[in-house]
Amino acid sequence: MGVEIERKFLVDHAKWQTLQKPHGMVIKQGYLLTDPEKTIRIRIKDQLSYITIKGKTKGISRSEYEYPIPLNEANELLSSLCEAVISKTRYCITFAGKLWEVDVFNGDNQGLIVAEIELDDENEQFDTPPWLAAEVSDDARYYNSNLSLNPFKNW
Amino acid sequence: MGVEIERKFLVDHAKWQTLQKPHGMVIKQGYLLTDPEKTIRIRIKDQLSYITIKGKTKGISRSEYEYPIPLNEANELLSSLCEAVISKTRYCITFAGKLWEVDVFNGDNQGLIVAEIELDDENEQFDTPPWLAAEVSDDARYYNSNLSLNPFKNW
Repeated sequence: MGVEIERKFLVDHAKWQTLQKPHGMVIKQGYLLTDPEKTIRIRIKDQLSYITIKGKTKGISRSEYEYPIPLNEANELLSSLCEAVISKTRYCITFAGKLWEVDVFNGDNQGLIVAEIELDDENEQFDTPPWLAAEVSDDARYYNSNLSLNPFKNW
Repeated sequence: MGVEIERKFLVDHAKWQTLQKPHGMVIKQGYLLTDPEKTIRIRIKDQLSYITIKGKTKGISRSEYEYPIPLNEANELLSSLCEAVISKTRYCITFAGKLWEVDVFNGDNQGLIVAEIELDDENEQFDTPPWLAAEVSDDARYYNSNLSLNPFKNW
């Protein structure tokens, strides 16, 4: 089991527009299960596909299990057994020695840009990039599982 | 995607007792999700572990996706994220050129013995072994996912 400890922030759109960005990765994902106790996700990222099981979020930590699966079966699972599918472009940006994953959402979540940092422990300190806006780690609406069921355009 | 077409029968206990049987495999399994639309199962079979996603049963057919996962993570998933775990011993028996999987249930499903045959198409003919009893293909109580939630001892 991995344990995922991450913090999540909104992104200042104006500052983000002016930023020099690396190539983004297109991500398509859907959920076989969205439940307060656990989620089961199918994700296609740059032609690689995974099934990912995550346990209940406790504070900013949660257990995570991820296994590769064939791309054609990932597409079948997304179209036949997942509820709404979300898509986004992910940019990996290093700032002050830490990796930030910035997701620019498409489709029904267009207009939403979210940045995540993965930490080694819950109290780890880090420098915040200038394009960061409010923290939303504790706001369940921003869980990707919830964005698939209740997308940003409906808020 | 695989498609699973199977028929399921009860087993005559008296005839089963007198049968010369091969070595049985111990199977432990639990469900991350049991839903009329789909099930997601974690199974440990003779030290090999899998995650298996099955779609809705249509007649006697259903879609099935199965992926190997590490044994230690299968045990973690069974104990932390699955509801009730069921255990059984499986005997693989060839009769008239066809493979029968006979599951002798333990624990809360003790007393239940079920035989399954996998078919290539829904109308395929096959010979029935003398130890076969009533067919239960259409009885949802015998789904393993349901046996985990409502075991035989409660019937």
